[in-house]
Amino acid sequence: MKKAYIRPLDLRHGTVDLSHGGGGRAMVQLIGEIFGRAFDNEWLRRGDDGAVLPAPRPGERLVVATDAHVVSPLFFPGGDIGCLCVHGTLNDVAVMGARPLYLAASFILEEGFPLADLQRIVASMAAAAKEAGVPVVTGDTKVVEKGKGDGIFITTTGIGALPVGRELSGANARPGDAVIVSGTLGDHGMAIMAQRENLAFESEIRSDTAALHGLIAELLAAVPQTRVLRDPTRGGLAATLNEIAQQSGVGIVLDEAAIPVDPQVAAACEFLGLDPLNIANEGKLIAICPAQFADALLAALRAHPLGTRAARIGEVTVDAQHFVQMKTAFGGRRMVDWLAGEQLPRIC
Amino acid sequence: MKKAYIRPLDLRHGTVDLSHGGGGRAMVQLIGEIFGRAFDNEWLRRGDDGAVLPAPRPGERLVVATDAHVVSPLFFPGGDIGCLCVHGTLNDVAVMGARPLYLAASFILEEGFPLADLQRIVASMAAAAKEAGVPVVTGDTKVVEKGKGDGIFITTTGIGALPVGRELSGANARPGDAVIVSGTLGDHGMAIMAQRENLAFESEIRSDTAALHGLIAELLAAVPQTRVLRDPTRGGLAATLNEIAQQSGVGIVLDEAAIPVDPQVAAACEFLGLDPLNIANEGKLIAICPAQFADALLAALRAHPLGTRAARIGEVTVDAQHFVQMKTAFGGRRMVDWLAGEQLPRIC
Repeated sequence: MKKAYIRPLDLRHGTVDLSHGGGGRAMVQLIGEIFGRAFDNEWLRRGDDGAVLPAPRPGERLVVATDAHVVSPLFFPGGDIGCLCVHGTLNDVAVMGARPLYLAASFILEEGFPLADLQRIVASMAAAAKEAGVPVVTGDTKVVEKGKGDGIFITTTGIGALPVGRELSGANARPGDAVIVSGTLGDHGMAIMAQRENLAFESEIRSDTAALHGLIAELLAAVPQTRVLRDPTRGGLAATLNEIAQQSGVGIVLDEAAIPVDPQVAAACEFLGLDPLNIANEGKLIAICPAQFADALLAALRAHPLGTRAARIGEVTVDAQHFVQMKTAFGGRRMVDWLAGEQLPRIC
Repeated sequence: MKKAYIRPLDLRHGTVDLSHGGGGRAMVQLIGEIFGRAFDNEWLRRGDDGAVLPAPRPGERLVVATDAHVVSPLFFPGGDIGCLCVHGTLNDVAVMGARPLYLAASFILEEGFPLADLQRIVASMAAAAKEAGVPVVTGDTKVVEKGKGDGIFITTTGIGALPVGRELSGANARPGDAVIVSGTLGDHGMAIMAQRENLAFESEIRSDTAALHGLIAELLAAVPQTRVLRDPTRGGLAATLNEIAQQSGVGIVLDEAAIPVDPQVAAACEFLGLDPLNIANEGKLIAICPAQFADALLAALRAHPLGTRAARIGEVTVDAQHFVQMKTAFGGRRMVDWLAGEQLPRIC
């Protein structure tokens, strides 16, 4: 009796086919040779349907966040869908104040997707996970027919442990609090848009994609009184601050002159008719804390490589309508609304 | 100052558009009116980027499993992608011996997907989650352009708590152990295939999609000595037993006459040239236990509505080549291999 013969994966010229999602030998091979090798750890090696993992320390709570990543193009200046899907989910866990512990990753591949691209993306994920010190402990792979997907979609789920007594939430902002941002706004979204639109600048606009849990640990050590942390991804600063204003039942007034934007990002936004406040970031943080701690929080951010351009950009106000407004450079005020229409799809 | 006006969702005739994934007001509306209403619980209501959750009890470990669901068609006899994505992930957590605690759900929607279908699917998810007693605590929604997806893909991640001292793994099978299945094989896969191929039978073949954690709790209470539990989904019984044989370093010999298959499923398989052992199940369980506990395990399964047709189908053997074989009805033996080629895509 002989087992069916199966060829080795051709990682240079091969492509994903439907058998790689069929539950048979080809799937086992793909998972072993690409995912198993890159993410290798004791849990994946076990080969069970789920991973059995040490729980958080006594008294700690769990934090869970999940994100589908459909960014197009898959590779962009400063990153790719692989590191982005690790950073984005780790950041969602970290802004709750939690220590990220584990990642789960689920892949939807389109028939015909080059195995070389898959391997490159998985290597980028693995490097990002390793740098963050958070293992990918379980996963799943599906394949859809050509024309029914778009190369690769990756959903990552992050699990973290929330230390005893820590309470961060978008619902915690109070009038008088300071609003701080960890750096320039709009870099990720404009890196994607510039590549899509083939815009050429003196120097390339690069995505800011980065894992923020190290920066957040420093920030919370310096200012445990911090009330809100949030990463302004899709919808940008405008959407995130509007969400916080709604959740907390407050208003927010920003100071336009204080908001850090890279000159090239500002130029690209102007060219495309976009507002940097609506553009996605993937390595930036909004922090809201009582005003008396704002300088300490700023100092903690600026001492970290990911926060050198941190700035205090506004304050929380009493506002029954929960508006986010901006004091303009010319002394006026304008609304900072979230986008109502269709814009900037597939940015993350 | 006025906020942008946004129309109410047209749940009867409306469709998903790119703005529903853009991070702006339309996305907030979609999430609130469809997901928030259906899954409503204290964690989702909070509106943060992640959910803060009670941890497992002291001494318990975490179990995490994740699955992308790309089944086509979305609606099929016996279920739909909504209940399937809940059942499939809960089962992956439950077969590790864990008590499922939480679900995270991530949606990739194609532009133009009918909101009525989305609402129907989400209602099915919510009903399945409620019936299982496991809340959907966090989620994400992305939208891709028409032609870059296929209606809806859903990735669910399940988190469970593993009681102290419980160790189930595909690596634990030992020669002499009994192999038991909880019911008829191939129902889910053939329900999908019959619908795709427009096969007509006297009565409809229905998917067996179901959450198995209740059945598993009864089984483990009756036979805590159980060594392996696994749900034979993609690739069917053949793939799952081959995986177990590899993980445990054993052989498995099945008794063809003992394997329960519904007559209509058998007929459909024969018509399509398929083997029921390769066909996916979504509400069935393989259990492996020491032979002396086989009768007790069978009795526990048969006492539960999801296990009435449970059967002892084979035994674990010493086999350096880790083969899975079958004693046929005619007294011969044949290999039970996993599928090498391309077959049965998008079954779950």
